[in-house]
Amino acid sequence: MSVGINSRMVAFVVHALAVVASVMVFVWSICYRGGFAWESTNKTLIFNLHPVLTLISLVILGGEAIISYKSLPFEKRANKLIHLVLHAIAIVLGILGIYAAFKHHNEKHIPNLYTIHSWVGIGVIVLYSLQWLYSFIVYFFPGRSSTLRREFLPWHIFLGVFVYVLAVGNSVLGFLEKLTFLEKSGLDKFGSEAFHGSMAIITILFGTFVLLIVYSKAPPSDEEDNYSYSAI
Amino acid sequence: MSVGINSRMVAFVVHALAVVASVMVFVWSICYRGGFAWESTNKTLIFNLHPVLTLISLVILGGEAIISYKSLPFEKRANKLIHLVLHAIAIVLGILGIYAAFKHHNEKHIPNLYTIHSWVGIGVIVLYSLQWLYSFIVYFFPGRSSTLRREFLPWHIFLGVFVYVLAVGNSVLGFLEKLTFLEKSGLDKFGSEAFHGSMAIITILFGTFVLLIVYSKAPPSDEEDNYSYSAI
Repeated sequence: MSVGINSRMVAFVVHALAVVASVMVFVWSICYRGGFAWESTNKTLIFNLHPVLTLISLVILGGEAIISYKSLPFEKRANKLIHLVLHAIAIVLGILGIYAAFKHHNEKHIPNLYTIHSWVGIGVIVLYSLQWLYSFIVYFFPGRSSTLRREFLPWHIFLGVFVYVLAVGNSVLGFLEKLTFLEKSGLDKFGSEAFHGSMAIITILFGTFVLLIVYSKAPPSDEEDNYSYSAI
Repeated sequence: MSVGINSRMVAFVVHALAVVASVMVFVWSICYRGGFAWESTNKTLIFNLHPVLTLISLVILGGEAIISYKSLPFEKRANKLIHLVLHAIAIVLGILGIYAAFKHHNEKHIPNLYTIHSWVGIGVIVLYSLQWLYSFIVYFFPGRSSTLRREFLPWHIFLGVFVYVLAVGNSVLGFLEKLTFLEKSGLDKFGSEAFHGSMAIITILFGTFVLLIVYSKAPPSDEEDNYSYSAI
């Protein structure tokens, strides 16, 4: 059921969308929402770390990690190392981003974990970490038998894609939630900041092109081994 | 990259989750939000048609349509007819559900199309309808050559899954948006209605199990032709 496309071309689209989404979330947090701080009396600056860190980690770095096997010109072992290191960085930054949201809530005495975005978010970071952990044990260190690795691969991909789709979806939920809060507090529903919410659409497109690469066929000219998710 | 599971078993989980999600959205709309009306001075009753119709159409019926090939005991041609009819009903009910949201906005003089949920929603219904239309032409009437149908199948599946994931994600967005509006208007953040928002999690689970069936292998005992998405 693989889609016949030139994945290396699509990878350029992915990288371009990654840049656009990252720039947009920075512009939003800095130009519209006032920038960042880890300690401040202006608690909004603490919150602003949350969308930037979580989008760039679990969505952007996570997406680039997922397509590393098919987008990078290195040999498979190098791509595998990049795959797991990028995912590890994504998890660390993701946890930091989630911590920023709790810190903001605690310091402003807002209750924690009362929205669907927060519930799904906790689910995403737990599942993402579990996915990394068991995959590290099965595929890297100490590594299981090649039969098990090969047979488990479709599950690794399905579960990974599942967690990734949840992460992308939850970013979009987060953008919507924040904009809804702001609009309820008086932000112009058709003003430039409201339309800056179109970064949610860019995020969805980014995730879609990542999955398009996952479900694409190897080009006929490439050796199977250097262009696939086959287990090593 | 197919996952080795017993899809007929998983289909039972899907049907069960479909029932739970449908009951929950009805209970929410009727017991918590006051029920339905097409014409009323209480405009909330008009809005209440929106979550019920869109969830049951594009998500529940859409999901059941997607897995029809793998969940129903009929022969392939019958499943194909069920697949396209269920999707057609989903589109009609979906449009009606979206219309209810516009009707509610118009009669209450709320601006239309200012949220991410509404933008993605318009995208979903347009793409869902286009997906149905080109697929009808390619696979049903007048129907194209078997080569084209076979070669186009991975795209049909990928695009279909893409639109479906958008539909599921957008339902979750919608639940979150409505609950955020209600909580901003004084609804208890930890009250029973807020926790009824867990239907969003049921919806995500439903969508996940639908996709698990899509990406599952045929059981060895089944004939390939009676248990797959191969083009007919």
